[in-house]
Formats: sequence, structure tokens, C-alpha cells
Amino acid sequence: MPGKTTFVLGGARSGKSVFAEQLVEQSGLDAVYIATGQAYDDEMRERIAAHKQRRGLVWTTVEEPLDLIGALRSHAGEGRAVLVDCLTLWLTNLMMAERDIAAEIARLAAAIPELSGAVLFVSNEVGLGIVPDNRMARAFRDHAGRLNQAVAAAANQVYFIAAGLPLKMKG
Amino acid sequence: MPGKTTFVLGGARSGKSVFAEQLVEQSGLDAVYIATGQAYDDEMRERIAAHKQRRGLVWTTVEEPLDLIGALRSHAGEGRAVLVDCLTLWLTNLMMAERDIAAEIARLAAAIPELSGAVLFVSNEVGLGIVPDNRMARAFRDHAGRLNQAVAAAANQVYFIAAGLPLKMKG
Amino acid sequence: MPGKTTFVLGGARSGKSVFAEQLVEQSGLDAVYIATGQAYDDEMRERIAAHKQRRGLVWTTVEEPLDLIGALRSHAGEGRAVLVDCLTLWLTNLMMAERDIAAEIARLAAAIPELSGAVLFVSNEVGLGIVPDNRMARAFRDHAGRLNQAVAAAANQVYFIAAGLPLKMKG
Repeated sequence: MPGKTTFVLGGARSGKSVFAEQLVEQSGLDAVYIATGQAYDDEMRERIAAHKQRRGLVWTTVEEPLDLIGALRSHAGEGRAVLVDCLTLWLTNLMMAERDIAAEIARLAAAIPELSGAVLFVSNEVGLGIVPDNRMARAFRDHAGRLNQAVAAAANQVYFIAAGLPLKMKG
Repeated sequence: MPGKTTFVLGGARSGKSVFAEQLVEQSGLDAVYIATGQAYDDEMRERIAAHKQRRGLVWTTVEEPLDLIGALRSHAGEGRAVLVDCLTLWLTNLMMAERDIAAEIARLAAAIPELSGAVLFVSNEVGLGIVPDNRMARAFRDHAGRLNQAVAAAANQVYFIAAGLPLKMKG
Repeated sequence: MPGKTTFVLGGARSGKSVFAEQLVEQSGLDAVYIATGQAYDDEMRERIAAHKQRRGLVWTTVEEPLDLIGALRSHAGEGRAVLVDCLTLWLTNLMMAERDIAAEIARLAAAIPELSGAVLFVSNEVGLGIVPDNRMARAFRDHAGRLNQAVAAAANQVYFIAAGLPLKMKG
């Protein structure tokens, strides 16, 4: 594990989760997976199942849709690598629960430097297409951009993933 | 200010405007901000206000929705850094005014090398999502891609911004 | 031609086709263009015509909407550079023809290392916008991401193109 906090940003089906999982596996640390996705529908259930299968049995899996900061504080620690997959699903859950997004982003950014051990965040870049028609999608896009900026600023290493390949942006 | 013309490309909420503003502030040059955005609705008004607040008081602000080339010729000059934010809003305005987009892009590309002082252009990358359903959005996407290519070709330095971090693509 | 298989990934109107064409022209090899796009509508016809015009007369052009692997086996060879433009249109055609996409991707990935001469693939990155509303567009996005990952893994060189400028991601 080269740095303490690693941020892996990429598009849909870019290979970002696999890349982050490989970083954890190469670290030799005890692996904890914090899944922020809830099994809302069959499509999501399939994705979570595929992720579980790929990660194999040596991982501890935690499902935490909303209290990500609490889950990080409980599970991060020396000798462990905690992988959060992903921040954009956490954001979706926060918006559905009508939380104060700016406050949640600020809390997460403040919590990151206090966590011990290795922590990896996976997130989607969603701001590189045409402006969405509906206001909710625009709000999501704005929040996601701010969340990604905040975590990238707090991270020691940042990778942008496209077609399964990493571009190092920081660290 | 390392080069004469700088092009800053990024997604929505990628931190591209802040990055460009920091380049200007670090340059020590007299700062001019050319806002191409018109305050069409509350959402836009809020964004322009946030931009103004962030830039502080030492900037000269010019609002020019259509005659960007004229504004550049009037304001660019030795000892000054002119920041255009952003090209995709200018393109939106040109399309609404039913201008000849290819001709406007060609005029801008021809004007850039003749400007003196430092000039910085901020623009959105909008071509990395799914093909939009409606023809107008597809036309916008095509024009934006061509505009970005033309300005990148004319620029001395090009940065791609994601999550607030720059990737240098040229210069 | 620096490597054997080159993958050029980029957004709409990013300049990816021109970049790939320039690699072929600089190679001095006999140039073959495999067009996967079918002239479905006027918009597409215009694009194919513009591509043909830009490529000039020294290229051999092959139109192959579905049997890309067969076309590659027929046309790739020592002394030749075969440019496939583009993989995402091939994917569209496969989905319209209700083919087994995972199987087609696996067949292409297996075929690539057996081709001789230089082969270049152009493809669109479509996963960096907001999640599309309709299931078909989400399926396309997922397939495109997996296809791009598979070809990037099989390629010797990978470039990401934005605003006409290349970022080398592999090779």
C-alpha cells in the first residue's frame, strides 16, 4: 500500500473497482469492503453479487448506505485496508434520505486525516457528458463533483481509471 | 504565468474555474474575468455570484455573451491575464442566437495568436457520456468538441482537470 | 508504427479518429480502414463522408458492421496498418442484431494477439456522464466499458484523447 488514503476515480465500467481491489490485495493488509450500495433492484443486486464473487472470501464485507463516516471509524485501523465502493452510491443514498450534502462532504473530508491504516475510496466521475435535463440529476452531478474534489484533496494518491488503465493524478 | 495561452478543460464541478483563477492569481498580472454566462435563471445567477465571491475584488469583470473575440481584443494586453469562463457557455449563447458556429470557431482560433499578454480559456468536456437523445444536444456536443480542439491546438498549455487535479496535456 | 496493436479511446468529437489516422499515415504501411458504421441516416452518412474525404485516396476502405473479427483476419497482415473506426458503432450493430455481446468481446480479445501487422482500434468512452435513464442505454454503457477494457488489455499501446490531444495510458 503506497499511501494512506487512495482515491480511485473513473467512469461506469471503467475497471475502477477491480483496480482498487488489486491495490488492497497487493498490500497484504487485512481487507475490509464497505459497500454503500443497497440492493434496490435486480440490476444492483447482480452488481453487488459480482463484486462479492470477485473479491473472494478473505474480505470482511460491511454494508453501510448512510453512516459511512461511522463505518470508517469502526473499521479503519493499523494493519487494515478499508475499501469504500463507492462514494457516488453513498451520495445517492444521502440525497434520497434528504441529508445536508455539503455538511456530509465536509464531515467526510474532516474525518479522512484522522483514520489510521489504509483507506481507499472508489467514485464515479459523472460530469463529462451533456448537462442533464432534470434538476435532480444536475444537483447530483454538482454534489458528486464537489465530493470528488474534497476526497481528492484529502487523499495521498489519486488515480483516474479509463478502460481498466490508471492515470496517476496525485501522489 | 508559464505560457501565453492556457486552455483548461474539465467536467462539471471539476474545479476547472478555480484552477484557472489560481493560475491567474499566481501570475501577478492584472486580472480580467470575461464571463460568457448570462444570468438566465436562479441556478445560473447563483453560480455567477459564487464565482464573483471566490474571485474577490481585485479582478475586473466583463460580461460578454456573444462578442467574445471583440472582448478579448479590447481587454487582452501586456501585463494582463484575461480569463474566459467559459467557452461552452459562449457556444450555448451563439447557438441560441443562431450564429454560424464553424465560422465563429475559426475566427476565435485565428484571433488567439494575435492577442498579447496571458489569456486563459475554461471549457467543459461534454463528449464522454452516452449519445444524447435529442438532435440539439448532439449538435452542441459536436460543436463543443470542435471548439475545444481548435482552442487546444492554438494554446501553449492545455490542462485536463478532474476532481480538482490537473493533468497536463500540452506545454 | 510504434507497437502492434494500438487502442485510441476518446469522447465524441475529441479528435480520436484523426489521431489514429495520423498514426497510420506516419507508419508508412499500406492503410486499410474498416468502417463499422452503417449509413443509417443523413447525420451518419455525413460523418462517414467526412471521414472518407479526410482519409484521402490511398486508403482501402472496408465496410463491416458485424463480422469485425472476420474482416480483421482477412485484412490484417505484414506491411499493413488496419484501422477500425469504431468499436462502439460495432457494439451498437451487435446489440441491434441481438448478438451475445460478452461472447463477441471475448472472441475479439482472443483474436487480437493472433493478427499480424499493425491494427488500430478507435472507440468512444461513454461512461463519464450521469447514469442514463433507460435500461438499453445503461446496457450499452456497460458493454462499451467492458469492450474498452478488453481491447485496452490486449493492446500494446493505449491513448486517451481529449480536445485533440493524446494522453498515453499504456505502452
